[in-house]
Amino acid sequence: MDKNERLTMIVFDGDLDKAMASFIIATGAAAMGKQVTMFFTFWGLNVLRKDEPIQAKKKFMEKMFERMMPRGPKKLQLSNMNMAGMGPKVMKKMMKDHNVSTLDEMIDMAEELDIKMVACTMSMDVMGLKQEELRDGLEYAGVASYLAEADEANTNLFI
Amino acid sequence: MDKNERLTMIVFDGDLDKAMASFIIATGAAAMGKQVTMFFTFWGLNVLRKDEPIQAKKKFMEKMFERMMPRGPKKLQLSNMNMAGMGPKVMKKMMKDHNVSTLDEMIDMAEELDIKMVACTMSMDVMGLKQEELRDGLEYAGVASYLAEADEANTNLFI
Amino acid sequence: MDKNERLTMIVFDGDLDKAMASFIIATGAAAMGKQVTMFFTFWGLNVLRKDEPIQAKKKFMEKMFERMMPRGPKKLQLSNMNMAGMGPKVMKKMMKDHNVSTLDEMIDMAEELDIKMVACTMSMDVMGLKQEELRDGLEYAGVASYLAEADEANTNLFI
Repeated sequence: MDKNERLTMIVFDGDLDKAMASFIIATGAAAMGKQVTMFFTFWGLNVLRKDEPIQAKKKFMEKMFERMMPRGPKKLQLSNMNMAGMGPKVMKKMMKDHNVSTLDEMIDMAEELDIKMVACTMSMDVMGLKQEELRDGLEYAGVASYLAEADEANTNLFI
Repeated sequence: MDKNERLTMIVFDGDLDKAMASFIIATGAAAMGKQVTMFFTFWGLNVLRKDEPIQAKKKFMEKMFERMMPRGPKKLQLSNMNMAGMGPKVMKKMMKDHNVSTLDEMIDMAEELDIKMVACTMSMDVMGLKQEELRDGLEYAGVASYLAEADEANTNLFI
Repeated sequence: MDKNERLTMIVFDGDLDKAMASFIIATGAAAMGKQVTMFFTFWGLNVLRKDEPIQAKKKFMEKMFERMMPRGPKKLQLSNMNMAGMGPKVMKKMMKDHNVSTLDEMIDMAEELDIKMVACTMSMDVMGLKQEELRDGLEYAGVASYLAEADEANTNLFI
């Protein structure tokens, strides 16, 4: 397969703005016919969390850490000018005014476009997150799997 | 064209240090004869803002957001150790002592080297920035244009 | 040489989590037989600093700046949820519980796997860091050297 038919990205950051940039690029590429793989690591896993609190069996410290991290797309903050939640509200309002999709809609679009979303299992361990806390339809893999996919693609971004 | 004759980068962050890293790589590549495209999105757009305040027609919230963002290369902060503006001053002094160009000079050099600087139109909407607020000589495009260029280049960075 | 036999990364950030992500990818790729080059710039140089304080000859401002930056892998902070040092402790505990190597161990592994670690000389000037403050076994080079290596590799990440 031609390398231009594929694109991979590692989504490391869990900020609203970076998550949006990731999905804008990913869905844009998929719409152009590319096969896209998004590999979520570290804070990027928060983008995949379900909205509702999940009772997963975990240790005290894992629970504490998990509770302090944002639960899903609606709760993400901005990397800049977050201003205690005011920044994301302003940005969402401006997105709506200009007919830009919400992050939730972009994620749904990514699913419809068959974008492969992979959660990094080692990061899940480090962040204390369990499969049942993440949205359905994900794949689970490690760094070797990412590297094999990157070999097949011309454009490989770390976001 | 050989893919090694091209390089693209997405400049997402608007911090002084990351902007400097972007332009050091971009001008270095152009000096080696590569055709370079810099695609500015989100906070990266602040690097391209004119120094002087511009009276653009915009809504109240866009105006508020815009006023809080740094206006051009001279106003950018550091991603670390910003220390209320002291960090950038110290770094600029150390750059001067070691004959490293200022960011302003690097941007001028990028223009002279025919580096293509593209402002992401969707990000401009989301950040409430208008064309008249950005420096002259830019191109304006969306994600599809970026992806087409990335296909032609071996090295594609997200900064 | 086939481009898939090589991988390069620029390590710009000096946060514990990003440093870990860098070394997980780099050692993973080297274990698969790839020739890996890590190019450390700006805050990423802090990952390479020796633990002990070094008396290098430098100007007052360089000294001040250097003292405020973390000295080596053990002192790095998190990019998120740092919580005055509590965050890194919690993350290190969770890594230990899941048998994930420490950053120090990963760096040693990188050396054993012959990963080429390069310190960016221009960044060293800008950050006021001297060779004797960085770990042994590094190479020293500039952006032209990085770009030449990136041309030979399929996957080139900016972290």
